[in-house]
Order: sequence, then structure tokens, then C-alpha cells
Amino acid sequence: MLKVGNYQFKSRLFLGTGKYPDFDIQKQAVDKSETEVLTFSVRRMNIYDPSLPNFLEKIDVNQYTFLPNTAGAKDAKEAVRIAKLAAASGRCDMVKVEIIGCDKTLLPDPIETLKATKELVAEGFTVLPYTSDDVVLAKKLQEAGAHAVMPGASPIGSGQGIINPLNLSFIIEQSSVPVIVDAGIGSPADAAYAMELGADGVLLNTAVSGANDPVKMAEAMKYAVEAGRLGYEAGRIPKKDYAVASSPEEGISIGN
Amino acid sequence: MLKVGNYQFKSRLFLGTGKYPDFDIQKQAVDKSETEVLTFSVRRMNIYDPSLPNFLEKIDVNQYTFLPNTAGAKDAKEAVRIAKLAAASGRCDMVKVEIIGCDKTLLPDPIETLKATKELVAEGFTVLPYTSDDVVLAKKLQEAGAHAVMPGASPIGSGQGIINPLNLSFIIEQSSVPVIVDAGIGSPADAAYAMELGADGVLLNTAVSGANDPVKMAEAMKYAVEAGRLGYEAGRIPKKDYAVASSPEEGISIGN
Amino acid sequence: MLKVGNYQFKSRLFLGTGKYPDFDIQKQAVDKSETEVLTFSVRRMNIYDPSLPNFLEKIDVNQYTFLPNTAGAKDAKEAVRIAKLAAASGRCDMVKVEIIGCDKTLLPDPIETLKATKELVAEGFTVLPYTSDDVVLAKKLQEAGAHAVMPGASPIGSGQGIINPLNLSFIIEQSSVPVIVDAGIGSPADAAYAMELGADGVLLNTAVSGANDPVKMAEAMKYAVEAGRLGYEAGRIPKKDYAVASSPEEGISIGN
Amino acid sequence: MLKVGNYQFKSRLFLGTGKYPDFDIQKQAVDKSETEVLTFSVRRMNIYDPSLPNFLEKIDVNQYTFLPNTAGAKDAKEAVRIAKLAAASGRCDMVKVEIIGCDKTLLPDPIETLKATKELVAEGFTVLPYTSDDVVLAKKLQEAGAHAVMPGASPIGSGQGIINPLNLSFIIEQSSVPVIVDAGIGSPADAAYAMELGADGVLLNTAVSGANDPVKMAEAMKYAVEAGRLGYEAGRIPKKDYAVASSPEEGISIGN
Repeated sequence: MLKVGNYQFKSRLFLGTGKYPDFDIQKQAVDKSETEVLTFSVRRMNIYDPSLPNFLEKIDVNQYTFLPNTAGAKDAKEAVRIAKLAAASGRCDMVKVEIIGCDKTLLPDPIETLKATKELVAEGFTVLPYTSDDVVLAKKLQEAGAHAVMPGASPIGSGQGIINPLNLSFIIEQSSVPVIVDAGIGSPADAAYAMELGADGVLLNTAVSGANDPVKMAEAMKYAVEAGRLGYEAGRIPKKDYAVASSPEEGISIGN
Repeated sequence: MLKVGNYQFKSRLFLGTGKYPDFDIQKQAVDKSETEVLTFSVRRMNIYDPSLPNFLEKIDVNQYTFLPNTAGAKDAKEAVRIAKLAAASGRCDMVKVEIIGCDKTLLPDPIETLKATKELVAEGFTVLPYTSDDVVLAKKLQEAGAHAVMPGASPIGSGQGIINPLNLSFIIEQSSVPVIVDAGIGSPADAAYAMELGADGVLLNTAVSGANDPVKMAEAMKYAVEAGRLGYEAGRIPKKDYAVASSPEEGISIGN
Repeated sequence: MLKVGNYQFKSRLFLGTGKYPDFDIQKQAVDKSETEVLTFSVRRMNIYDPSLPNFLEKIDVNQYTFLPNTAGAKDAKEAVRIAKLAAASGRCDMVKVEIIGCDKTLLPDPIETLKATKELVAEGFTVLPYTSDDVVLAKKLQEAGAHAVMPGASPIGSGQGIINPLNLSFIIEQSSVPVIVDAGIGSPADAAYAMELGADGVLLNTAVSGANDPVKMAEAMKYAVEAGRLGYEAGRIPKKDYAVASSPEEGISIGN
Repeated sequence: MLKVGNYQFKSRLFLGTGKYPDFDIQKQAVDKSETEVLTFSVRRMNIYDPSLPNFLEKIDVNQYTFLPNTAGAKDAKEAVRIAKLAAASGRCDMVKVEIIGCDKTLLPDPIETLKATKELVAEGFTVLPYTSDDVVLAKKLQEAGAHAVMPGASPIGSGQGIINPLNLSFIIEQSSVPVIVDAGIGSPADAAYAMELGADGVLLNTAVSGANDPVKMAEAMKYAVEAGRLGYEAGRIPKKDYAVASSPEEGISIGN
């Protein structure tokens, strides 16, 4: 079980809800993924205003835990304000701090992210900051009370997978709270790799919603996260430069 | 369905039977993997001699297709002789040509492998040659009648995964027979990656038998192959240098 | 010419002075490298106390610009104190901010590094902060007045080279001050690669002092930095998935 | 000194002569590279027919050793014929066997390359076969009398650099004749890396002729090969997962 603050999840896959071709495909992908946590941007959603069309209109919202993010916030103050807006709906006290520091790369602002994390923890939120793979910052976020840290594998939507597995390993090794790899996952192998490194979960969106067949990719990701987690628990073989026969022949003689 | 010669398999994972801690673990790993094809070295096995202890003693051999390999052969002549020895058991007409050309790296001999493939095809075997990732050789093996080609990801037992995805892609692209990635797979992510590149299957042994928990790793590999195959069919997103927001904000305004 | 604050350098290689087998080899390596900037830890050096043996005893100190670092500092306050200690010698107003946030990985503390940079800029130093490859932090360091930013390629002394070329490219692209890649360079190819990405310089120490033959490696690094810089200026060919003949044959016929 | 058959070269950079913007740039690039060996396709050159314009018209041909290649040959027979055509000019007895087995990837045909090598050795040529990085094939080429082996780093003209350093290392380790890395080099860092792995030389063409500034890139490559060779001789530091301080502080205390 993955525990984040007071929450517990069987699935270690968090799924974003943005940019699906349509709501039917969104619903089917969510179903197939067997995720328990749905993420979305507070700013673009209007689930909190019943008079507007619901971006999750096909989804039984009571079935999921919501992890709204603060995308659009440029600083801690704005992120806190957005988080409170989400909380006001009464539907969620968990929030993903997302404060972008560079419009081109969509990479996060370390200073404001740390500041917002401190404030939201103080406000009683369950706080999951999206961060770069800066190892020391991840430690500081945890010290600030973050309930999980969410280092990016590579830029949001880039599909480049895990560029720096060393930093992720360091973050995982030192962390006493869950590490959810967020952003940059492009394929099932990437998701499996994150889990093999010891990540506690994976958050992805574009890799599924942008696939040619989002529903099938959602299923692929479910299996990939499962495979990676089992692989981590099973303890992989070490990498060796030289070959090691899987069929040793010492002392074997067969009729000839 | 994976079709190799006249055979059809639902599972795309071929599993080796060597080097498990004991026969119970071997059996459980084979079960969990849900493989349909078991590979082993003819030379070290004595399933063909009922008076000797059976290396598959815990396994219901009627449940599986056997893919014996010719490990130990140094040239085509020897490989053919070993293949015939296996066929004489009446249990298998499928053979993995494995002719090692370098004791240190256990990398295959391209010349003798091609020669043995031709001869075994002429003898009526279903022939799956283990080969390097040499693209032109893979084409020649196919032209020689191989029913599948089995390029290595990296040296046998090295656990280094797919070192040259470009060559594998080229081999897959040009091949009209199945491509089964063989050797070097170290983790579930490696297996998933091979499948995402479009491989038709994966053969592995040490990655499972050498894991701390082979049974759990066998299960991990089952999911990984499934994840990679689904991911291939689903069509992954392209890799991009720059970030692409998964939560676009165009035209969005929320109460403030 | 590389310009950092009011300094100008022909050489783009900054060389550390620590951990050489002996002072003769240190001197020869420094000579061969043709560096103009020597770095060292203020805390372990006593060049500022003439009564103690000089760690640069073989080197004509007037020939070089000194870039002392604040290694050993755990926070901004301590870094500023160390920098002032170095400045008090009258030999240097340039300082590399090095505030380690993790003893195991020796990775830098982003918060304290930014704070120290601001303070040292205000004090009139020429400030070169050592930082992770966090893209937004690099921008903030520059906005804080840093005269160059020094992102690490990988952990200090690890010799792992450039793990995340994408982040380095982003840092270089957005930076209006020089980017000096610092830490993790293991070989000449790594140094060349950093320069090809557009870095303005490279700082290294262990790759030279820890080589079997530090003097020869110093020469290698000199050529590598030159090669990488020229390669950057020359504009490399794009990477392509498919081959492109260098000897096209269109319309060619020769006697046969 | 690099020794190939009876030849000796100070420079370890072999340079191709194709696809330069014009003959002046070609000449300047050749000069700057300080190469001693020029390669070209026999089929597209007419240096052997004085009545036609000379593709090397600006170059003092007596200053260089020629390494014509058999590009365009589809099999051993044709390669031998082309090699003899080149030899008939009286200018060269050295030949690069280049037999392409796949028009799309321009990867070499292992079977025909081995056959042509045997025949050309028997004819008294100094034979340098272009080959894939198949380790066992490289050994067979050497056993067949090749005076050097020329494994590709990646497809011709692709600029992808060294995709499989492990195979190159194996080839280098086992080889008693020089190993010249050929094809795929894209940048100075790639060339340096090949040399660091222990290659005896590098052959490139497109990386220089296709650069924005071929003359400057030729100079970059000269330094890169030098840097890589010196780095190889100097013995690089090992790669480590964890950081190692370059400025240890044990037992150090400074005035505070």
C-alpha cells in the first residue's frame, strides 16, 4: 500500500485528466488504468462550480481521490490561493504544488515551491510538491513537511523519460516520505524504470492522453507500474560488463 | 498471437530454466511467468535420458513448448548434431541456434550461426538463431529461412539491457519473421522497452533466476512484456526537447 | 575570450589544485593544462598565512587568477565568512560559492547558495556559485547578480560526466552570464561534450589529479576544451536515425 | 605512432574527402585536420583518369596516403574488382573494404566483407574492412589477415556517435591489429570518446564536411583525437556512484 499523509492507495499510478480526445476516452482510460488518484489543474477545472460543464462529466468522482494542482501559479502566494480554492469545494485537502519558473521548459521554481509547501503544510493540507530532481531541495521539501515529493523525470510532456536516474535514486534513498515520479514519463518502460529505482509511485498524463490509443496505453501503464514495483521488490540482478552463461556446462557430458 | 513457424503463443515471454536456486522455485517462477515456451541447453539437460534425474522434475512438461538451445557448440556442425539429439527425444522440433564465438563475452559467431541456420532449416527444424544485433546478418538469417531471429540486447547474463535500440529497431523494421530479443535483459523496464520497440517477444533467464526473488521477478516480467506490447500497440507520444503543458490554460479564468 | 565579471581569460579550463600525488606533479599538470584560473578550498589552504607551508609551493602564484571556494560551509553565513577570509589575503575578489547540502552526494544547497550569492554580490565579490543543474535556480542565481553559474555535470569526483545534457542546454540557452560546467567531468570526452553544448568553460579537479598520469591528463583536458569549443563554434551535424552516404554515387559510372 | 600494415602515421585521424561545399574548403579542412590519410570512394573518383577533373584538385596528393574504399560494391567479387581498379593507379595498395548490405541503414554485409577481406589479403593489399560492431566478426576479420578493423560507431552519416561502447571495448581488447572507429562520429566529443576507449584511430567524413564550418570542425577533430588519445594513455578516473570530495578537509582548521 502506498501511504501519503492519511491516504492509502493500492494503485501506485496517479493519472492526469487533461488533453484526452474526448470525455468517453478519458473515462475509459481512467478505468483501464485502475488509478485511484486523479490530478488536474484547479485553474482550468470548474468542478467546484456546479453551474458550469464538468471536465470530469463521465467520471464517478466519488470513486477517486482528487489531487488538484496549482498550475498557473507563478509564486507561493498564488499557489496557496489556488489550493484554498480547491479545498473550498470540500472535495479535497490534498494538493500538488506546481509553481512553474520557466515558461519554455515548464520546470519548477525551487524557492517558491519550498515556500508554498511550508505554508500549505501549516494550513493543514496534504502537500505533494512537484520539484526538479535537485537532491537537496527534495530533502528540504520533506523537512518542510511535504507528505510526498514529486521529482520530474524530464520536462512536462516531453516524453523523454528518466534523464537522471542517479538523482532520483539519491532522492529515493534519503526520503522518509513517498517519492512519486512526476513529469516526463513517455512510455511504459519509463514508468517501470521509475518504479525499479524505488519510486513509490508515478504520476503521468500526456503519455496516456497523447498516445494514439489512450485507453490501451492506460492499461499498459497499469501493468508497467506493477511490473516495476514487483521488479523492485524482487531485487534485480547486478549489471556486469562481461557475460555470464545461463547454461553453465561445467562437468556436463552428454552422449556423443 | 505470436506465431513462430507452425507454433502459436499467447504469451510473448520465453523463459530459460537454468540456474534457479532449486526446482521448487524454478517451478513457481515458470508458473508465475505464464510463459508457454521453456528454453534450456541440450547439453546440460538429460530429459532425453529417463534414467537420469530430470532438470525439469517439478514441471509438467506436456504443458510447454520446448525450445532447446545448442549452447556449447563451437561451429555449425556441432550445433546441427546437438539439435538432432534434441529432436531425437520426440519432444521438440524447434531449436535455438546458439554458437558462441567468444568465451569471454559469449557473443555469437555470425558465420557459423548462418551456416547452422541454413542446414537446420533444410532438415525441417523450426529455427530461431541467437544473433548479435548486426542488422544485415539478421536479414540474411531470415533469408536463410529462420523462423524468427533472436538478437541480443547485450551480453548473456550481463543485465545491461538494450544497449543499441537503433539496431534493434532496424532489425524489427526489416523483418518479416518474428524478432525475439534474447540475452542481456536485466529488469522489467528492459523487457518493456524491447517490446515497445516492436519486438515480437523476449527471451530471458538470468534476469529471473538470478533475482533475489525469482518468483516475484517472473511475475514482474510477465507484466512488463504485457505492458511493453500494449504500449507498442497504443503508440507512444514522441519525444520532445521542450515541455508541453498537460494542463493548458488558454481561455480559462477562475474566480479571483 | 571568456569574460567573468571584470576578468578575461583565453583558456576556458579552470583547474582545481587538490589531491595531486605531489607538488611537482601538481605544478606540471597546471603548466600543461595552460589554465589561467586555479581553484582551491579556502579552508584547507594556508596561502594566506605565510608561516605555514604553502599548498601551491611550486607554483608561481602571480601567474594565475585565484578562484577560492567556500567548501566546508554549511550555510550562507559561513560561506560569506570564508569568502571574506580569502579576500582578506588581498589576492582574490573572485569566489566560488560552494555550500554542500548533502554529505553523501556533495550536492549543493540551492537555498543557501542563492542567499550567499546575493550577499557576496552585495559585498562586491565576483561570484561564481556552484549549483545543481536546476534550470530555474540557475536563472535566479543570475538574477541575483552571479557573474557566472557553475552547474554540476554529476556529483563531485564521481567521474560520471554529463548526466543531463538537456538541463545544461536549457541553462546555457537562458543565461546571459557565462556557464562553467563544474563537477563530475571524468574524461576529455566529457569536457569536450560540455563545451559542445555551449558551455563557456569547464572546471575540473579529480579528473586530472586522480588520473594515473595527471600531467598527461591535464594536457588531454586542454585539447578537449579546445576541441569542444571549436566544435561548438563550427556547428555540428544534426543527429539522424538513418544513414546518409558520405560518398554519394548518383550518376557515377566507372569503367567496367 | 599508428602502424597499419607497413604504414606508419603520426596522426590518428583519417579524413574522408566527400561532400565538402567546395574544393577550397575541402583543402583547408584537410590541412587543418593534419590528417595523413585521405579516404574516398573509388567509384566516384577519377583520380585514376587524368583526363577527367580531379576530385582532389586542390590537394597535393603526394603528401597523403590514400585509403580508397569500395563503396558501391554489393558483394565480395565487386569489392575486389574495385580495389584492383584503385591499385591499378599505382597510388595505393591500401583499401577500405566497404560492402553495404542494407541501402537504408548503409550497414555492412558481414559475410561478403569477410570474404572480400580474405581475397584482398591474398592479393597482397593492406586491408581495412569497415564492419559493424559485431565482436566475433571483428575477430574473424583479424584472423583473415585484416591489417586493421574498422567498426562503425553508428550508421554512416548519422552523427549519432558511439551507441555501443561495450562492443567497441570488446573489439579493442581482443584485437592485435589496430581498431579504427569508422562511421557515425558526429562531434569532437564522440571522437575523443572513441579514442578514450582505446581505439587506435578514427575515420570520419560527414562530421567535418557537413559542419557549418568544416574547416573549424576539422581543427576541432584534430584536437579531439589528440585529447582522447592522451586521455586513454593517462588513465581516466573510475566512475563512482557517490561523490568524492576534491577538497578534503580532514584535520584542517582555519582561524575563526
